[in-house]
Amino acid sequence: MTVATEPFAAVDLIAAKRDKHELSDEHIDWFVDAYVRNVIAEEQMSAMAMAILLNGMSRREIVRWTNAYVNSGERMDWSRLGKATADKHSTGGVGDKITLILNPVVAACGVSVPQLSGRGLGHTGGTLDKLEAIPGWRAQLTNEEMFSVLNSVGAVICAASDTLAPADRRIYALRDVTATVESIPLISASIMSKKIAEGTGALVLDVKVGSGAFMKTVEQARELAHTMVGIGNDAGVTTRALLTAMDVPLGRTAGNALEVHEVLEVLAGGGPSDVIDLTVALAREMLDAATSQGAQPTRDPADVLNDGTAMDVWRKMISAQGGDVDAYLPLGQHSHTVVADSDGFLTRLDAFQVGVASWRLGAGRARKEDAIDMGAGVRWHAVPGEAIHAGQPLFTLHTNDEARIKNALVALSQAFSVGAADDVQQRLPLIIDRIV
Amino acid sequence: MTVATEPFAAVDLIAAKRDKHELSDEHIDWFVDAYVRNVIAEEQMSAMAMAILLNGMSRREIVRWTNAYVNSGERMDWSRLGKATADKHSTGGVGDKITLILNPVVAACGVSVPQLSGRGLGHTGGTLDKLEAIPGWRAQLTNEEMFSVLNSVGAVICAASDTLAPADRRIYALRDVTATVESIPLISASIMSKKIAEGTGALVLDVKVGSGAFMKTVEQARELAHTMVGIGNDAGVTTRALLTAMDVPLGRTAGNALEVHEVLEVLAGGGPSDVIDLTVALAREMLDAATSQGAQPTRDPADVLNDGTAMDVWRKMISAQGGDVDAYLPLGQHSHTVVADSDGFLTRLDAFQVGVASWRLGAGRARKEDAIDMGAGVRWHAVPGEAIHAGQPLFTLHTNDEARIKNALVALSQAFSVGAADDVQQRLPLIIDRIV
Repeated sequence: MTVATEPFAAVDLIAAKRDKHELSDEHIDWFVDAYVRNVIAEEQMSAMAMAILLNGMSRREIVRWTNAYVNSGERMDWSRLGKATADKHSTGGVGDKITLILNPVVAACGVSVPQLSGRGLGHTGGTLDKLEAIPGWRAQLTNEEMFSVLNSVGAVICAASDTLAPADRRIYALRDVTATVESIPLISASIMSKKIAEGTGALVLDVKVGSGAFMKTVEQARELAHTMVGIGNDAGVTTRALLTAMDVPLGRTAGNALEVHEVLEVLAGGGPSDVIDLTVALAREMLDAATSQGAQPTRDPADVLNDGTAMDVWRKMISAQGGDVDAYLPLGQHSHTVVADSDGFLTRLDAFQVGVASWRLGAGRARKEDAIDMGAGVRWHAVPGEAIHAGQPLFTLHTNDEARIKNALVALSQAFSVGAADDVQQRLPLIIDRIV
Repeated sequence: MTVATEPFAAVDLIAAKRDKHELSDEHIDWFVDAYVRNVIAEEQMSAMAMAILLNGMSRREIVRWTNAYVNSGERMDWSRLGKATADKHSTGGVGDKITLILNPVVAACGVSVPQLSGRGLGHTGGTLDKLEAIPGWRAQLTNEEMFSVLNSVGAVICAASDTLAPADRRIYALRDVTATVESIPLISASIMSKKIAEGTGALVLDVKVGSGAFMKTVEQARELAHTMVGIGNDAGVTTRALLTAMDVPLGRTAGNALEVHEVLEVLAGGGPSDVIDLTVALAREMLDAATSQGAQPTRDPADVLNDGTAMDVWRKMISAQGGDVDAYLPLGQHSHTVVADSDGFLTRLDAFQVGVASWRLGAGRARKEDAIDMGAGVRWHAVPGEAIHAGQPLFTLHTNDEARIKNALVALSQAFSVGAADDVQQRLPLIIDRIV
């Protein structure tokens, strides 16, 4: 029997966390490893997750728990590239298409971006879903293919394989059904284990704050950012974080094909200023963080956007993964326009409700196995503070399933207000804080 | 799909308890029922159990949760007996053989005792295990057999069938491996659901306090007692509790055959005074609680012990379940005596360490599937306050496995002290409090 040779009993370690004791490094290493080996049952990990959520973990425990996830699988190594690497992770928001622009920008400035990315769930979109709006584009690459794209293009975005942090993969599925998602230690370990295992040398975290984000307050976001920055630096990845606004959605569109259109606008030197500003800020952080690997950035992010160099990298990156860069990405065949019914100012635009509307149109999934409508989404024609005239279009909705429009409109009706100039909402600054 | 027609999602109710909200009656009924129907997974019940342990439950929630356990199975009904019924539950202690004496005593006084009992785990013994030291005695009875013994003898002790509170049975097994045993709401629901489903009209709880008990402090025990008394009365069972001492073990023996020997001494009109006193006090409470069903006790408990009437009921009760009442119950073939190495007074006798010693000799089980050595156990020859002379026997150990003696002696060495008269431990009163 395996049991007889185990150094600990699962129930004792659950009881320790239940009673607010700290788990030792040996406890944590064993608990995660024994779970992966099926010596610890799903119900035991669930009880532990709830105890962690309610009683917390020390910084040391979180770092060790994260490392145990990393050690449950492969840790990638890009040293044979001979170049500095940097990546970005966003905690997720509405209209957040930054990665698609950012990675080509950073590559165009001389630092490689080996990004493993995820899919959307609920009202926030996922990077892989957006890229899959491009015909032919493939998210699944072997490690060799990933190296090859990274080496030739300088940037790659693909799905994480099952061999990376498999402990996290299983625990994440468990947390989803046991109401243990909302734990800063467990969120941090989940995010950071994948980024550490990915092998990036530097990492910038975009921790979003506001109604459309997972973290609703600056205080929560700051705690999460500090925790993750600590984990990353302890694991040898130069890590920093920006706290950024997600009270209002980013750019002017939410939805997969719609967002790729917006990405192309920005790569062509145009596009919404908030998207440009956030991309440039994150790119400069990534380049700066990569200097600890000896990187000497050759260009400035704003310049590579303006002169088309980033667009060139984008086209190579998409083509390298089978994507047809010149394909027209169709929007949903049904559209609907919401118009203003009075004069005034747009006083409020709520990221969460816009995200829900886009999701209900088919742009997102409620369950992992759901299909996505690439042509579904919302375009907003005004942002808070803009003068509005009665009859003016405020939103355009797109979907391939006309029946979805009604429910989306219910969410959108709660997403905005038109009123007096004095009533315009106080917005969060685009970049709220920087954590190093 | 069943899922689509469920009124709630498990994850929402776990999240509610996690966030310290009260669950409604509908939530609780559904959660327990859906678990029994396997709509709620083991990992979800585990997370809920940990959230309940850490965040507690209101009195209303506990009562409803208990009822949901009861409603998961059969509720027995003894009305066709035409007699009042009363039962007792002990939270478990060392040397606690009271039930074996108490049930015949109460039956001899004119009130029927329909007792479903359990087995021991860890350092405390179980009533069924003790009775199984008697050759031929059967714990498993059908409902009809149980009625028949109860009707003809007035007292029955048997194992609960799988049809009583099956929700509790499954949740108890889960709590055991997820460090969620130590929750007053969950302990109360587990104990009370079985007693309510058992169909007794009155119930007296013997809530033990001290090193050998589950509850180490009077405050914890009082909270548990109040909670269980409230649940019982709400369910229509006249319920009260005594808080009783378990700092020192009960009587003079721990171990299955040893304790049956002591039971026979008491039923014969002798035996240790603490066992007699506690039996009489509990019997009087049971008879008094049964008056709410119109019972008019015909005898006094002390009298039926003294004049052999209780012994007559015992003999009938054991015979009715196949037990050989005249069989000699052998003790373990290996014995060992611990003698005092100095003069003085026995200043301390610790119930927990005596229980551990008896357990290590083979009288108890570490896992449910372990076998028990009926002849194993400990007899103590002195109690705190008694004068001791060097060379005098303090303990006799019995076991059928000689190798077990060494480990038992380690526990026993921590179980007592010999010292000056002034150092004799302050003992808890045998009956600490009465909760109605």
